[in-house]
Amino acid sequence: MSTEEKLNQLRRLTAELANLGGIQALLDWDQQVNMPRGGMEDRSEQAALVAGIMYDRATSPQLGTLIEDLASEIPDINADDDLAREIKVAKRDFEHISRIPREKLIEFVMVTSRAHEVWVQARENNDFPSFAPHLTRIVELRREQAELFKPFDHPYDPLLDEYEPGMKTAEVKAIFDALRPQQVALLQRIAQAEQVDNSFIREKYDIDSQEKFGRFIATRMGYDWNRGRMDLAPHPFTTSFGYGDVRITTRYMETDGMSSLFSTMHETGHALYDQGLNPKYRHTSLGRPTSLAVHESQSRFWENLIGRSQAFWQFAFPIAQMLFPEHLGNLSIEQFYRGINRVEPSLIRIEADEATYNLHIMLRFEIETGLMEGKLETKDLPEIWNSRMQAYLGVTPPNDSRGVLQDVHWSGGMIGYFPTYALGNLISVQWWEKMVADHPNIPDEIASGDFSTVLAWMRENVHRYASRYDPQDLVQKITGSRITSEPYMRYLEQKYSQIYRL
Amino acid sequence: MSTEEKLNQLRRLTAELANLGGIQALLDWDQQVNMPRGGMEDRSEQAALVAGIMYDRATSPQLGTLIEDLASEIPDINADDDLAREIKVAKRDFEHISRIPREKLIEFVMVTSRAHEVWVQARENNDFPSFAPHLTRIVELRREQAELFKPFDHPYDPLLDEYEPGMKTAEVKAIFDALRPQQVALLQRIAQAEQVDNSFIREKYDIDSQEKFGRFIATRMGYDWNRGRMDLAPHPFTTSFGYGDVRITTRYMETDGMSSLFSTMHETGHALYDQGLNPKYRHTSLGRPTSLAVHESQSRFWENLIGRSQAFWQFAFPIAQMLFPEHLGNLSIEQFYRGINRVEPSLIRIEADEATYNLHIMLRFEIETGLMEGKLETKDLPEIWNSRMQAYLGVTPPNDSRGVLQDVHWSGGMIGYFPTYALGNLISVQWWEKMVADHPNIPDEIASGDFSTVLAWMRENVHRYASRYDPQDLVQKITGSRITSEPYMRYLEQKYSQIYRL
Repeated sequence: MSTEEKLNQLRRLTAELANLGGIQALLDWDQQVNMPRGGMEDRSEQAALVAGIMYDRATSPQLGTLIEDLASEIPDINADDDLAREIKVAKRDFEHISRIPREKLIEFVMVTSRAHEVWVQARENNDFPSFAPHLTRIVELRREQAELFKPFDHPYDPLLDEYEPGMKTAEVKAIFDALRPQQVALLQRIAQAEQVDNSFIREKYDIDSQEKFGRFIATRMGYDWNRGRMDLAPHPFTTSFGYGDVRITTRYMETDGMSSLFSTMHETGHALYDQGLNPKYRHTSLGRPTSLAVHESQSRFWENLIGRSQAFWQFAFPIAQMLFPEHLGNLSIEQFYRGINRVEPSLIRIEADEATYNLHIMLRFEIETGLMEGKLETKDLPEIWNSRMQAYLGVTPPNDSRGVLQDVHWSGGMIGYFPTYALGNLISVQWWEKMVADHPNIPDEIASGDFSTVLAWMRENVHRYASRYDPQDLVQKITGSRITSEPYMRYLEQKYSQIYRL
Repeated sequence: MSTEEKLNQLRRLTAELANLGGIQALLDWDQQVNMPRGGMEDRSEQAALVAGIMYDRATSPQLGTLIEDLASEIPDINADDDLAREIKVAKRDFEHISRIPREKLIEFVMVTSRAHEVWVQARENNDFPSFAPHLTRIVELRREQAELFKPFDHPYDPLLDEYEPGMKTAEVKAIFDALRPQQVALLQRIAQAEQVDNSFIREKYDIDSQEKFGRFIATRMGYDWNRGRMDLAPHPFTTSFGYGDVRITTRYMETDGMSSLFSTMHETGHALYDQGLNPKYRHTSLGRPTSLAVHESQSRFWENLIGRSQAFWQFAFPIAQMLFPEHLGNLSIEQFYRGINRVEPSLIRIEADEATYNLHIMLRFEIETGLMEGKLETKDLPEIWNSRMQAYLGVTPPNDSRGVLQDVHWSGGMIGYFPTYALGNLISVQWWEKMVADHPNIPDEIASGDFSTVLAWMRENVHRYASRYDPQDLVQKITGSRITSEPYMRYLEQKYSQIYRL
């Protein structure tokens, strides 16, 4: 076989893996959006079956040989070009998955599937002890998995690497250590200022109007409805079955009239990334987004940098007033803007404001690294959780359901995932600073409801690269700096100094 | 391996095939119900990928060896017991699919996928010639497929057998030959009687009320919403991803206020069968419905024997009047009952009434057998279609879109499928006669909105057997007779004599 034939063969195999991933995503989307209760047993079997098929194909000797051959046939696998990178990433994927024994993967799927069920009950019943043994087993399995990737600087590195290729625990720790005292200090200053009122959003808004608003803004952001749709899900998410079918979900809360819009802008941010991937990488090893942090930099960018900005509401507030006259009709835009940016240390991560969100993440990161180092035991988690919440945020959960049991991630084995949320926040402001430096007119455009320059910048600098660069390299290439917290702190200081008149 | 171990192994493999079938069904359901336009390319690849995986597993040497071993290890593969039948059907499935070369299957998938696209355009543009070469190729491929199953009595036998195991072309022909003159004669008598009025349903009914009505009746029929859901689809269908997830679809027509209810009852009839399959056969070779005709006997039973009966509307008409007062408020139940049973030869099969429906099928059966015998050429189809429509129904299509191009089946390669619709009609009345003989109180129960005895009878006599018996054997076992048209003609004669005062 010629090199070209081998490359075509490789792409046929990576295309199959991408399509299996699309099938897996559909099984999951349907489960969360549509599936009746009775479908659970068959659906679990189907998901496990596809996972097994994917494993077998991703580790097939045929694929391994092709990759080895290609890696030796191209001039330089470390060259900065598409082809070398494609083969390098294919090789990295193959070597990664091949290190995990099939039976260990199946065990992990079974253990986490059961743990998830137990966690749902435990959270409902505020019963951490029932979940603890399952979490202990998950931690053991994650430590075993990490062992397969020795040598490492830190046992958390291999887990982090699954979500954030190339990122090291030490880097995250350094970033968080720099950020934590500044965020805590800002919070303390805000706490001493006069609190702003947001009672007007703590109300039940008309659901049809919320939906209309969300769809209008998503459309305006540039979401392509011919390649997507929006449905309801209890926990909103975005998923993709291919470049031509990228779906978002939302929900409507009775206690927060604006949460659906922000959630929709968040998910649309994710979706714009998936819809903007360069078709030339479709079905190759480079065809997916580069990392979860970069993905989150998109969702948080649209949700916060755009959606919670003064400029955006210059355009959008009159529309909101028209849709929700009884709630917003008599409000000034300034009252509204300050209200939706109210800072208030709270118990639940996903409801946290911009000034407190990262602190929720840091405490999880510390617990996860402690578990992986073997310095923490599962049984101690509620106590540690509560004491850190008090230390960082000044609040203590009244129970574990609203504390250590609140997130789904650990029950699914996703230890290593949380840091990407905070990194995404940081990167989103790095994009913003660069984008506005490139196009100083952007704030004015946003104020007139024109997001085309913003989206074009993201398409050009982020989306189209897919996995062409690892996340740190991409951030460096575009902004001239690796992931850093300084822009984020500048942004927070400026924003909240104005809102809270600090 | 012991026989028991081999049996467990076999069931693991048939379970995988069942789960792959469930995945395939989800890909298709989502495509018809949810998928945005842009999803087509990836979805086609995903469907083809799953089809290939299924083929490879269904023809694997491991499966073949297991089946051979088991067939030789059990006392008698023709015994009338669950185990022998399970192995016999597994063997039949394996031998069937193994006769088709993989590349031929893939070619068939590609040709029909393309033909379907062309057909959609051709129907829209009333352009049969553009579709004709694709149909010619499909006929060639179907003839080649039939050749693989030689010897046969008729080249149509192997195709029919895919949908109706064990059924022969000669049997269908004999049934249709007996039925045709009687249906035509009845139609002529009806044509001479005074036509009934149905203008009250040729109106736009409120869609929310239609949906409420459909859901109410489906629930009353016994549809289990914990194991299903109802969505919108342009062409309603029922699908199943496993015993715990059996979904129906419906549509709302602007020109027919009752069509959605009848369609929903039809699909719910299909769904009750799938929801009623005996769990003991789940994931074995016997775990699926026995044939399309038996499936259609369920949908047509609920749609017609129940849904278009006088007894049903004693219960349901006041509800319909409450929901649609402007259309039905001043109507008598007799006017309504006669109106919904109006007989009128028409062009479109799926809109046909009970007295004309089978004639639409017979003409398709004659064309299909003619094509398979090589006596007909694709290019002659419009003319033959139109002349038979005139002969059997007294109407001539004004164009091919409403004639030979109306159905999706041929573009998908489903030659051999149509007869099962008419056979389903016949069987539905065979069930009815037996059911009422067993439980003479059933009509009174229906009149009071109680369908529990009806459903229990179907569960007991049809659903729970899944593929334990071939369709003719099942009909024989339950009714004492093979599939026959006499009960159906008795039913039509009696029903329309009353409605049209013949």
